[in-house]
Amino acid sequence: MRLSRAFLPTLKEIPAEAAIASHKLMLRAGMIRQTSAGIYAWLPLGLRVLKKVEQIVREEQDAAGAQEILMPTIQSADLWRQSGRYDDYGKEMLRIRDRHDREMLFGPTNEEMVTDIFKGYAKSYRDLPRNLYHIQWKFRDEVRPRFGVMRGREFLMKDAYSFDMDVEGATRSYRAMMLAYMRTFQRMGLRAVPMRADTGPIGGNLSHEFIILAPTGESTVFYDAAFEELKLSHADYSYEKPEDLENFFSQVTGLYAATDEMHDEAAWTQVSADRQREGKGIEVGHIFFFGTKYSEKMGLTVAGPDGQPVVPQMGSYGIGVSRLLGAIIEASHDEAGIIWPDAVAPFRCAILNLKPGDLATDALSEKLYAALGGDAVYDDRPDRAGVKFNDADLAGYPWQAIIGPRGAANEKIELKRRATGERAEVSLEEALHRIMAG
Amino acid sequence: MRLSRAFLPTLKEIPAEAAIASHKLMLRAGMIRQTSAGIYAWLPLGLRVLKKVEQIVREEQDAAGAQEILMPTIQSADLWRQSGRYDDYGKEMLRIRDRHDREMLFGPTNEEMVTDIFKGYAKSYRDLPRNLYHIQWKFRDEVRPRFGVMRGREFLMKDAYSFDMDVEGATRSYRAMMLAYMRTFQRMGLRAVPMRADTGPIGGNLSHEFIILAPTGESTVFYDAAFEELKLSHADYSYEKPEDLENFFSQVTGLYAATDEMHDEAAWTQVSADRQREGKGIEVGHIFFFGTKYSEKMGLTVAGPDGQPVVPQMGSYGIGVSRLLGAIIEASHDEAGIIWPDAVAPFRCAILNLKPGDLATDALSEKLYAALGGDAVYDDRPDRAGVKFNDADLAGYPWQAIIGPRGAANEKIELKRRATGERAEVSLEEALHRIMAG
Repeated sequence: MRLSRAFLPTLKEIPAEAAIASHKLMLRAGMIRQTSAGIYAWLPLGLRVLKKVEQIVREEQDAAGAQEILMPTIQSADLWRQSGRYDDYGKEMLRIRDRHDREMLFGPTNEEMVTDIFKGYAKSYRDLPRNLYHIQWKFRDEVRPRFGVMRGREFLMKDAYSFDMDVEGATRSYRAMMLAYMRTFQRMGLRAVPMRADTGPIGGNLSHEFIILAPTGESTVFYDAAFEELKLSHADYSYEKPEDLENFFSQVTGLYAATDEMHDEAAWTQVSADRQREGKGIEVGHIFFFGTKYSEKMGLTVAGPDGQPVVPQMGSYGIGVSRLLGAIIEASHDEAGIIWPDAVAPFRCAILNLKPGDLATDALSEKLYAALGGDAVYDDRPDRAGVKFNDADLAGYPWQAIIGPRGAANEKIELKRRATGERAEVSLEEALHRIMAG
Repeated sequence: MRLSRAFLPTLKEIPAEAAIASHKLMLRAGMIRQTSAGIYAWLPLGLRVLKKVEQIVREEQDAAGAQEILMPTIQSADLWRQSGRYDDYGKEMLRIRDRHDREMLFGPTNEEMVTDIFKGYAKSYRDLPRNLYHIQWKFRDEVRPRFGVMRGREFLMKDAYSFDMDVEGATRSYRAMMLAYMRTFQRMGLRAVPMRADTGPIGGNLSHEFIILAPTGESTVFYDAAFEELKLSHADYSYEKPEDLENFFSQVTGLYAATDEMHDEAAWTQVSADRQREGKGIEVGHIFFFGTKYSEKMGLTVAGPDGQPVVPQMGSYGIGVSRLLGAIIEASHDEAGIIWPDAVAPFRCAILNLKPGDLATDALSEKLYAALGGDAVYDDRPDRAGVKFNDADLAGYPWQAIIGPRGAANEKIELKRRATGERAEVSLEEALHRIMAG
């Protein structure tokens, strides 16, 4: 992407309406633009990150055996009357009447719809277990939307729904999703801690929320230092082996972790003092096992091996995809701007041409740009070097390749790592090697 | 995807509500499920095709220099009051009041919003030309939704918006989009014909619609046979060269093409009889040049090279992404089911294991499945061969690899090409070679 032709507008002033770092930085870097209260348009830079985050979520859902579908945003009120939630949901539900005066709504979640869809096809125990997920825009009419994409009204959510024949199967599904979530956040360069949680309006008997550790997080959390070293490679635990899922679950839930509301001083003193960590966190995911709550109300039954009807056991599993962008920035930024983890960076590298029009500088810049393919942004604007440095720091590309006439004369590039500020003068080959390595 | 674990439900009965081939076939093949009148959930098979179609649209927009953003579904009525379309739009617009009683709507198109966003950043002639597009769900509250995804209420559309300093620039943008559209449809295996069209409620002075030729199409079209041989490789025309765009435009618009409403008998007789074609077609895209209609009303100006304010010239360019699936099926199916063009097939190949449990059959099937990676569906269900043949024909995978005990004993696979019905007994290596070749 050549900046001279791109639509990547940065703002110099700090927008007044933004109270937290991620909101300010996303506006300043030209990632998003508010179009109504709590509703945002995603500009090219923001959309690139959103898609990378979405794709990591998708790949880890697929790896766990969940199958992607896509349910519509607009739902019929009748579905929600069957579960009894139409009246319960309150003012956060955006209610709509269509031209025929039928009551509709913009879906805030999909338990009712997915159960109804599954009911249309699942006839026998052979059709279970299944886990269906989708990544779709949701709407919750927050009374006071704020914090940018962290608490918007229209937001992108991944929600998965599992159907099992019995509690044992549903427990496996729950554990598989917990493992998928931990891997998902790990791949994004985040430290995630799962915590026992209330089930709230979704209902049910077992629930965990996933908290991302970030110094500017919204809630205080207490956790065992072991979470900081947790690595969950695909070699260690297989989704195909129930005992692996059980071991994983015991390992992770055996470690102390609680938000301040759920904090238990007695249990906390059992954690050795050198492993006690207190920090701030942001909720980015929530999983629920709620048994037959929705399958019963929506009339879902399948024939068991003996021909008798069985009401499937269900769970639901959410990740706030658009919210994650805010959480990642809260966890990874400095005074100058965003510091993207490699896996979710909008572009891997920014090429800063310090003197457009200078033959050698242009040539070396173009060479590197061509070699990096689509994964670089090329700042070829006729602006001062200071503007380019600031914009690249603000947008948070992991690497900056700084190219000026003096270096270019010797085919040298000054390579800067955004996260550490480290700089090195290197050849084109060496620059490529380091940038592609991570 | 192993069918024994997949959520790919096929229906045996022909759904009564479906009147046209594509709607029937999409329901029978388990691609979509209606959740309300004119609103569909996309099941795994349908979603895979939708994503492939969307990705081709995206790649050709990117190649033409358009930049992807993502605007929200819910818009403020205030924006539409500025353009004067809030009252004009009528009952097709889904109007909403939020909890604070603010008037909102589910966007049917985005001229107002994109102009407002662009206005927030574009200050001078250096910020133009730009073309911004997004691929987002739209809602039009059709009084009588029908024909499945061909005339649904919630539908996926790609809409692009160009901003130029003058009419000459806007004409280039218009021609570039026309070229991108022809390439887009060509890549999907479709024959597309652009036709002069009325501008309708979008307004403006120049407009073309793109009609896909399909024997079961909704409207009658008259066109020059030259459209059937048109090939638009990237080598022939460059988006960077205005003269290429002009040549392309003259070539394509110089050929006779008209729907029956616009048909001109006098001009038709000028086409030599052996090149006159009459057929049926389906509209899948529409492009408009409308000058300053929206930029003026939304107050968009930029400083020209002389510092004087200039009102940019605009165009908008739509493709019905979800509608295209219906159009492709209308253009490519037979009695037995869908015949997917290679580029948009949900899976390249179906592996039909005729005797699950037979050691050699299982081994050869698994070997081919592993070799094909994610691009195969493996029918490992304990069903009769006839069920598997029918389901594979119905779903329309370009290749079927039929594996039974007799063949497997000699490491032989019966390879069937869905489009032609051709069959050949081949080795694993030869099967792989043919399947991957297209």
